[in-house]
Amino acid sequence: MKITELGEFGLIERFRKAIKLDASVIKGTGDDCAVIRFTKDKYLLFTCDMIVEGVDFRRKENPYLVGRKAIAVSISDIAACAGIPRYCLVSMALQKKEKVEFVDRLFKGMQDICHKYKINLVGGDLSRCDKLTIDVSMLGEVEKKYLALRSAARPKDIIFVTGTLGGTIQGKHLRFTPRLKEARFLAKNFKVHAMTDISDGLIQDLRHILKESKTGAIIYQGLIPQSAQARGLNDALSSGEDFELLFTLSRYDANRLIRRKLEIFKPVGEITRKSYGLKIVDEKGREKPVTVDGFRHF
Amino acid sequence: MKITELGEFGLIERFRKAIKLDASVIKGTGDDCAVIRFTKDKYLLFTCDMIVEGVDFRRKENPYLVGRKAIAVSISDIAACAGIPRYCLVSMALQKKEKVEFVDRLFKGMQDICHKYKINLVGGDLSRCDKLTIDVSMLGEVEKKYLALRSAARPKDIIFVTGTLGGTIQGKHLRFTPRLKEARFLAKNFKVHAMTDISDGLIQDLRHILKESKTGAIIYQGLIPQSAQARGLNDALSSGEDFELLFTLSRYDANRLIRRKLEIFKPVGEITRKSYGLKIVDEKGREKPVTVDGFRHF
Repeated sequence: MKITELGEFGLIERFRKAIKLDASVIKGTGDDCAVIRFTKDKYLLFTCDMIVEGVDFRRKENPYLVGRKAIAVSISDIAACAGIPRYCLVSMALQKKEKVEFVDRLFKGMQDICHKYKINLVGGDLSRCDKLTIDVSMLGEVEKKYLALRSAARPKDIIFVTGTLGGTIQGKHLRFTPRLKEARFLAKNFKVHAMTDISDGLIQDLRHILKESKTGAIIYQGLIPQSAQARGLNDALSSGEDFELLFTLSRYDANRLIRRKLEIFKPVGEITRKSYGLKIVDEKGREKPVTVDGFRHF
Repeated sequence: MKITELGEFGLIERFRKAIKLDASVIKGTGDDCAVIRFTKDKYLLFTCDMIVEGVDFRRKENPYLVGRKAIAVSISDIAACAGIPRYCLVSMALQKKEKVEFVDRLFKGMQDICHKYKINLVGGDLSRCDKLTIDVSMLGEVEKKYLALRSAARPKDIIFVTGTLGGTIQGKHLRFTPRLKEARFLAKNFKVHAMTDISDGLIQDLRHILKESKTGAIIYQGLIPQSAQARGLNDALSSGEDFELLFTLSRYDANRLIRRKLEIFKPVGEITRKSYGLKIVDEKGREKPVTVDGFRHF
């Protein structure tokens, strides 16, 4: 059997079942970060993200932005758990014939974003490959009371997203700002139930929340904030690498957030019982099953 | 300028100079692990190692052993700092046409070695590449009093290695046992000065200790423990991926260790003042400059 038959998430699920963890692990595979016991008040967050030339970026892209992206995707994972990024390592496989100038710009992109977010770039590893490959592992910390996982959505929660969705291939996937500030604002002012970042598309990442929380959801087509670059609704629902936040709040907290009139946070639907499944309501009020998917590596 | 002109270590040095770190980082780039402030008595160790098909292993190797190696090299880094490995993440880029059975065996190799060393495999990331690429990031911990860095060698220290060196390409590079037990034994019973693991060859890794410790060294050719697979002295001096420990002890502690008559620890030379450089003494007592190098990715 080929891995394409199992699919990316089938493969992950296959591994996940076989893994045994000790009591110091609060959360292993299955969320944006692993969560590890740390101090009396805080957890450690631990995450990694690999980007490969020809898959996650093209050879002709600006190497500064590629380096920046390699770090930014992990910051987005830490943000999705409402934490603060602190340390990272960078493993890179480079072409033997690569120019120093190219690597310098790649590195400058990493360094600048680390500096901006006060992240310590504490080391790494180098190897060789025809396709430029960068894997960043990041350590962060989060106050226990702020930790937001995918598994905490409850029926009647209101579902929100930040920013606008779709068309990221036009450039946002290389230039996005990880929603760290917004995630911390939410954690400090509301009781965030479930949260994740949109890396595989709204629908697919919402499915991760529904699966982990054992719930269903209803999404309102008319409420989906489409970016100027989105090629229609389906693109906004399924476009990978938006790196926006997708989160749920109780109705009480949802009302408090909406009353703040902050344009960046938009309600898009509601969590339901699991048996409801996932449905979308069109602009004429008709309920439809969801037919779009998101990004998968295989 | 191409990166081959600068070389792997030239490139690392170039990055290292540009990095700024906060006070919570005890040691950044330049050792086997990054060392981070943690509890009153312990430091966190953080390391990553990337292995790529065609560079660090061949396609035809047993995937179980490739998975095992991906984890073992990071355990060796933690051991080189005298720490205990605790958590790891695995990023993998797979071929789209890869078979599930292949990935299962790869994963089983990872899982079994994690289980053996009580390491929690807490997550990972998947991407696509024509060359199988695995990057493992690992977190460990070490008692402050046991931490061993490359920078702590002192003139008159005796230099030791564990096991035998050379010929690892015959199979040891895939089957080696990380010297965790030995490193912990040393840390608990002696004051280890400098320590590193031999991943790039004895001479090259010794040069890292000399550079970080600002010292020189003299090595005795007749004392180098060659493995049965080694193709002569130069191979034992320069063969990458032995994953043995290279460490220094004061003369007092060296005598205590030698008196224990433990076959695995062998003295091979002595630390000198920096101005002495690095020299090797042949079996007739003649001093020679060192002409061999070790493994470099570019």
